[in-house]
Amino acid sequence: MTKAELAELGRRSVAASRTLADALSSTKDQALCFAASSLLERSEAILEANATDIDRARTAGASETIIDRLALSHTRIQQMAHGLRCVSELSDPIGEIVEGYVRPNGLAVRRVRVPLGVIGVVYENRPNVTSDAAGLCLKSANAVLLRGSASSLLSNIAIAESLRAGIEKAGLPPDAVLLVEDASHETVEEFIKMRDVIDLLVPRGGHELVSLVLDKATVPYVIDGDGNCHVYVDASADLEMAEKIVINAKMSRPSVCNAMETLLVHKDVAASFLARLEVSLRGVELVGDEQTCRYMSSATPASEEDFATEFLALKMSIAVVGDLDGALRHIARYSSGHSEAIITSDRDAAARFCREVDSAAVLVNASTRFVDGSELGLGAEIGISTQKLHARGPMGLRALTSVKYVIDGNGQVRT
Amino acid sequence: MTKAELAELGRRSVAASRTLADALSSTKDQALCFAASSLLERSEAILEANATDIDRARTAGASETIIDRLALSHTRIQQMAHGLRCVSELSDPIGEIVEGYVRPNGLAVRRVRVPLGVIGVVYENRPNVTSDAAGLCLKSANAVLLRGSASSLLSNIAIAESLRAGIEKAGLPPDAVLLVEDASHETVEEFIKMRDVIDLLVPRGGHELVSLVLDKATVPYVIDGDGNCHVYVDASADLEMAEKIVINAKMSRPSVCNAMETLLVHKDVAASFLARLEVSLRGVELVGDEQTCRYMSSATPASEEDFATEFLALKMSIAVVGDLDGALRHIARYSSGHSEAIITSDRDAAARFCREVDSAAVLVNASTRFVDGSELGLGAEIGISTQKLHARGPMGLRALTSVKYVIDGNGQVRT
Repeated sequence: MTKAELAELGRRSVAASRTLADALSSTKDQALCFAASSLLERSEAILEANATDIDRARTAGASETIIDRLALSHTRIQQMAHGLRCVSELSDPIGEIVEGYVRPNGLAVRRVRVPLGVIGVVYENRPNVTSDAAGLCLKSANAVLLRGSASSLLSNIAIAESLRAGIEKAGLPPDAVLLVEDASHETVEEFIKMRDVIDLLVPRGGHELVSLVLDKATVPYVIDGDGNCHVYVDASADLEMAEKIVINAKMSRPSVCNAMETLLVHKDVAASFLARLEVSLRGVELVGDEQTCRYMSSATPASEEDFATEFLALKMSIAVVGDLDGALRHIARYSSGHSEAIITSDRDAAARFCREVDSAAVLVNASTRFVDGSELGLGAEIGISTQKLHARGPMGLRALTSVKYVIDGNGQVRT
Repeated sequence: MTKAELAELGRRSVAASRTLADALSSTKDQALCFAASSLLERSEAILEANATDIDRARTAGASETIIDRLALSHTRIQQMAHGLRCVSELSDPIGEIVEGYVRPNGLAVRRVRVPLGVIGVVYENRPNVTSDAAGLCLKSANAVLLRGSASSLLSNIAIAESLRAGIEKAGLPPDAVLLVEDASHETVEEFIKMRDVIDLLVPRGGHELVSLVLDKATVPYVIDGDGNCHVYVDASADLEMAEKIVINAKMSRPSVCNAMETLLVHKDVAASFLARLEVSLRGVELVGDEQTCRYMSSATPASEEDFATEFLALKMSIAVVGDLDGALRHIARYSSGHSEAIITSDRDAAARFCREVDSAAVLVNASTRFVDGSELGLGAEIGISTQKLHARGPMGLRALTSVKYVIDGNGQVRT
């Protein structure tokens, strides 16, 4: 794809975004439902395209993990369609009056939620992102410009075409969803610099993509970064509760970013707690500091690197700390700023932990696994931001909006 | 300054930010008041340093505009001190619960306003920014890392030292305010890439600085961009009101970003309105489209460039438009996204204008000059954001904060 062709796609996105900004909620919701039906109607074509993508990936020697991320099925398509219908049922963020007041001179000031314009999404492998991202963008009245990976190109094209057909049927511009059908590295580099087109870039991928965005993007972005999440078991913790939470945080779904990666235990309860935990954590590879290895026979020594690692697997690191300060220091040093939990019955310890841990989410006596858009009531999420600006933590529809001042007067001038 | 020295300053900022995050409102307010007194006590030393800066600038051939921006006086120092006292009287944004709710499983979720950490400010000439920026950062519990220009280096050092003395007297870390005493270009380039240190970069300067940030910064930033503001006088406008507003928007302070730069007039009222306006705009250089030149004898033809220019002077461009759509198209093409006003008595026109103009602020029947932190009740502002992410429009204390999820449970695990 030439620069000019990419720019032309950009212009089409911007044009579509202008029409969308003004669309009624009911029209957007209808478009989402039509898009869902369209996905189901075209399932066969989507699965055929997907089969070709998978064949090519296999021939190119892709790992089974990648194949699994690529692969669609009737069930997965139904999930995508269901996702779009769920988004249609969320309340519309656009038009919400965030704040309103009257100034002494009679000016009525409102801050009104508005769409951002064009959302750029760069993603890898998973073709369902095409549909999930498009749904959230459409609901929030943004056009979406999608750039998937080469591996899922045919699947993405088939899905995008289905969505576009549904959107058009509802009377909205099909260019609300546009796919950049070129997965070359040059195009990504160009894409993340389309400052006149992209109002928000959402990179969905691994470290390499995030680094590329941090180093080279000139459009605004939000980073959905690593989740090196900690659970700290305080001296005053209810150890039965602590055990339940640690098991849940580590084992319920180890491959996601809100899973626990490091357990910190107060020295006063370390011996008994780690001993009982060793039984219930069977199947999890344990690496720990010196004391941990003393209390848990199956633990092997953890390296500095281990404490900094988001394993995303049945593996965890453990450290025994002298007190709350030790836990806070460990977290300040190693945390990726995603989610950290304290298990305690001590009011002051809970308050200090919540105040001093500088992460998107802090939890008291609950599993880190709750840090998720749907668990926190956002309906759906486009990612979990580990940055501090614009959106922090799970990003729902509001993260895809901006706020505009609307100021109503009757002739006021400034003196 | 070597990279290592800059990194060391960064570490000191981060350390100070951790202490600040936990400071009581009353302590921060006391620090602001002590800093104000300290500025007044050290006036002579500050003015001496300033005199040296000015001598050097003159010798280097600086323009009178630059000298004026550089120059301090007893009055200007009093204004700086007054500014700090005013900020101490604003309510503290930190700890504000932005939103709170209980999930069906009993988890109590709060979103709590917290400091960002370290704010980096790059600025040019005006030494008062040293004090103004430091005040807002201190109030919002952020450390500030300042990098002024070479021209005002001695003034900035003297001001920063005064502020630090006041902060220390209140028992807070003086490193809450740190000045990078090196104004070389290499240091700026390094500064805007201090990703482990700077949580938010606020560039305060001209186009060159903004371009540098857009192209090279890898830290998060907010851009306080141009204000190419429009006023559209609709066919249904009260022309007397329109005249008052246009005069105010253009003439009350032409050098600021919320001043009007372009007037758009509906064709039906253009002849009479522009004729009466020509008298009241005496002293303003007028450039306009063909029809404007027909109605205003003193207007000269406007170039494409003129319509895109933020004059910041007693000069304005004028265009006659066929209808509201024409006005919206003109604004979509030329606006910098700052502030635009419509003068109308037509309900539908006002509503469409507010909805369709994609700017930080839209006004109905009021002067664009109101788009300002203090006029909108924010107390003080660190700038006016023309970007859509994080903060849009006048940025007060809240723009210097983030929001963290605090989740309170009693043993919940995810099923």
